[in-house]
Amino acid sequence: MISYTQVFQGTAFSSSSPKEVKILKDHLFCINTDGMIEKIVAPEEEGYQILIDSYSDTEQFHHLAEGQYFFPGFIDLHVHAPQWAQSGTALDLPLYDWLNTYTFPLESKFSDIHFAKKIYENVVTTLLTNGTTTALYFATVHKEASLLLAKLCAEKGQRGLVGKVVMDHPEQNPDYYRDADTQTALADTEEFILAVNELAKSVKQGVYPVVTPRFIPSCTDEALKGLGELAAKHDTYIQSHCSESDWAHTYVQDRYDKNDAFALHDFGLLREKSVMAHCNFLNDDDAELFAKTGTAVSHCPISNAYFANSVIPIAHLHAKGVEIGLGSDVSGGYSPSLFDNARQAVISSRMLDDGVNPALPAEKRGLPNSRITMNEAFFFATAGGGESLSLPIGRLEENYAWDVQIIDTTVASAKLPIYSANEDLFDVFHKIMYLVRPENIREVWVQGEKVHSRM
Amino acid sequence: MISYTQVFQGTAFSSSSPKEVKILKDHLFCINTDGMIEKIVAPEEEGYQILIDSYSDTEQFHHLAEGQYFFPGFIDLHVHAPQWAQSGTALDLPLYDWLNTYTFPLESKFSDIHFAKKIYENVVTTLLTNGTTTALYFATVHKEASLLLAKLCAEKGQRGLVGKVVMDHPEQNPDYYRDADTQTALADTEEFILAVNELAKSVKQGVYPVVTPRFIPSCTDEALKGLGELAAKHDTYIQSHCSESDWAHTYVQDRYDKNDAFALHDFGLLREKSVMAHCNFLNDDDAELFAKTGTAVSHCPISNAYFANSVIPIAHLHAKGVEIGLGSDVSGGYSPSLFDNARQAVISSRMLDDGVNPALPAEKRGLPNSRITMNEAFFFATAGGGESLSLPIGRLEENYAWDVQIIDTTVASAKLPIYSANEDLFDVFHKIMYLVRPENIREVWVQGEKVHSRM
Ligand SMILES: [Zn+2]
Ligand SMILES: [Zn+2]
Repeated sequence: MISYTQVFQGTAFSSSSPKEVKILKDHLFCINTDGMIEKIVAPEEEGYQILIDSYSDTEQFHHLAEGQYFFPGFIDLHVHAPQWAQSGTALDLPLYDWLNTYTFPLESKFSDIHFAKKIYENVVTTLLTNGTTTALYFATVHKEASLLLAKLCAEKGQRGLVGKVVMDHPEQNPDYYRDADTQTALADTEEFILAVNELAKSVKQGVYPVVTPRFIPSCTDEALKGLGELAAKHDTYIQSHCSESDWAHTYVQDRYDKNDAFALHDFGLLREKSVMAHCNFLNDDDAELFAKTGTAVSHCPISNAYFANSVIPIAHLHAKGVEIGLGSDVSGGYSPSLFDNARQAVISSRMLDDGVNPALPAEKRGLPNSRITMNEAFFFATAGGGESLSLPIGRLEENYAWDVQIIDTTVASAKLPIYSANEDLFDVFHKIMYLVRPENIREVWVQGEKVHSRM
Repeated sequence: MISYTQVFQGTAFSSSSPKEVKILKDHLFCINTDGMIEKIVAPEEEGYQILIDSYSDTEQFHHLAEGQYFFPGFIDLHVHAPQWAQSGTALDLPLYDWLNTYTFPLESKFSDIHFAKKIYENVVTTLLTNGTTTALYFATVHKEASLLLAKLCAEKGQRGLVGKVVMDHPEQNPDYYRDADTQTALADTEEFILAVNELAKSVKQGVYPVVTPRFIPSCTDEALKGLGELAAKHDTYIQSHCSESDWAHTYVQDRYDKNDAFALHDFGLLREKSVMAHCNFLNDDDAELFAKTGTAVSHCPISNAYFANSVIPIAHLHAKGVEIGLGSDVSGGYSPSLFDNARQAVISSRMLDDGVNPALPAEKRGLPNSRITMNEAFFFATAGGGESLSLPIGRLEENYAWDVQIIDTTVASAKLPIYSANEDLFDVFHKIMYLVRPENIREVWVQGEKVHSRM
């Protein structure tokens, strides 16, 4: 018999398609030394009882208690790690004030590596506590602190994709917070890429450098061009913001006489490993370009309510073949939880579908066929995120990483309203998606290693 | 010196106006035997130190630790208590299916008093755990189970306003779940009122009977008329749903050739003690009628995303002088937390303000001046709820009830991102409103009694 490092027994939920969730009832999940799911065995399959007999008396065997379930770890495709320190504040302010009174002064403090350590330790832990096993992070312009964030992900066992932010445009950024100049921005980025790649050699779950122009308005053309070249040279991930708001969308049109998507593409910034945040104002041509280049959209539904002036037609974009994942956008979005963001993704899509203004007649109010179900929001938070990053994560299937949240619906202080042991498991799934708090997330595993647990 | 039953020392937040939150830094709150705040003393006031000296060695003295704050208890103006058992499920279904496949079959089970006890105990506890000190409940058509809910509120120390639901219309309700006939509905309601009034004599924090026609479509004209008369006769609260959705709004127009508000008024159902849920489709005449009669709106922002086809223009209605509080609408709204609902109230208002469809030009997309701030959402969850019920609750002021949540921002497993002891207290307030989980709610007090605490 093959020897596994861990064998887990319990009921799991995983997307079988964007609209469908499959239930793996009482299955066995056999994990190999690489932290991958090597084999999944259903109760009716041959070998099920043999495996239980072989492992059940060992420390490698984990049997879920009644009311506990396996969920894929969440994949957060957009987090500004430094902004965790201001999460929840100043959201009543206009973007300009939010940036200049809160965000830029805060981010500038990450030149202080001790301050950075305090916040970054906390943000990685907080995301793990919320079930996020993989995170695509914006750090700040500071090379050292950005590298520290990658190291902390490595240490704490999170799969971290980290970008040193580039914002070199002297007229678009404050004097106290930007890259010294374009050449420094590019040189720092390349050094950062090499350093993270070096770090990655010893990190089981993976850490990855990400080429990260903040967004077009923050950057000079040379920087954008140079970043595209660096990404190609080192085959890295790329992240930025794209067509987020009326202002940002129009700014790019004014500067290049084309939409954000095509401008980014001209600089070599749209590729299979690209993830663009928000993208509320993509038109169909933009969407086709995304689909063609393999660029993914990071949908940030909570943040969008504050800074995007609209709801992204996510069902439409998904139907056009664009890869989509969910992002918290801490701290444009206040919540570090993708449960919260999945809930808001459903709600926002319904508001786009029905429309919002009750003074309009129903048939003129909304954009029909825009709503998504909770199954789809779950897909975006898990399998869709994995597809966006082209990594074998986000599904509980063979040859996927063992990235898992163990959800306990019976925690005394946060008991879910489940009153029958025979409750339909799809209803249980929906109760979990809508009602789980971090309290219910009892353990988190990444690549076969336990990285978080609560008593 | 006057003798107080309890003296609390700490920093509190309370609405000074709908748009402004005041900070009572390190104040003393002196509670009398009735559980009312008899005196509030600021550090600079005479008597502050004397009070501390007199009480600090006694069991009656409660000093908040660093990072802990007093919040007014929340007032939930719309909860369907039986529906807690299905919270989070079936929200992808259309209303008709949600009602007939899930909700009515569930509510019909409350003829079984043992089943009712299990769910009702859990819903009262859950709301207290979430900081809700006062709740306005829909129960079911069943008189006994509805009375049990009032008794459980009494026992557990929550201020409960409870309605036995009336739904007597033979064509609009399923055979298996409705009042036997109109006369029974009215007789049961009157018996229920008398029984709750009797119970109330021994309940410090108050329990109140509420006349509760489910909504106009569920009821015959005689029932509506009879309920208006019963409310006047016994001077009770009244609750119902009003102009929630396109369907409900149009149904009433078709039946009476007038809007829901005026139809309800004709039956004597709009009065100072009336609270109407949703009200998304009120026009200005309806709003003026609400303001004139003292009828309050229970705004249920999460639920509205699923069943109201629109976002209520809450800023506009408030400006028209309508009293407004927040409701969870469990389980049309999945969350039992008014923190969650306050967050969604802000988000929804911004979506109404900006609009949702990115394909429309910005100036045609939304309804400007619709957004509310988090201060206003907090007001609706606290002081606005108190005004809606005409009770001295929802503010931390003298002659208000000591209904309080003690929020701890430092809980190890749910620490808020506060990194400086000197952080601006308004920023702390916003972090609490946006990020608190039930874990952070360490104690809940109602009318001077501790009704919930966590280790
Ligand atoms: Zn962002
Ligand atoms: Zn309702």
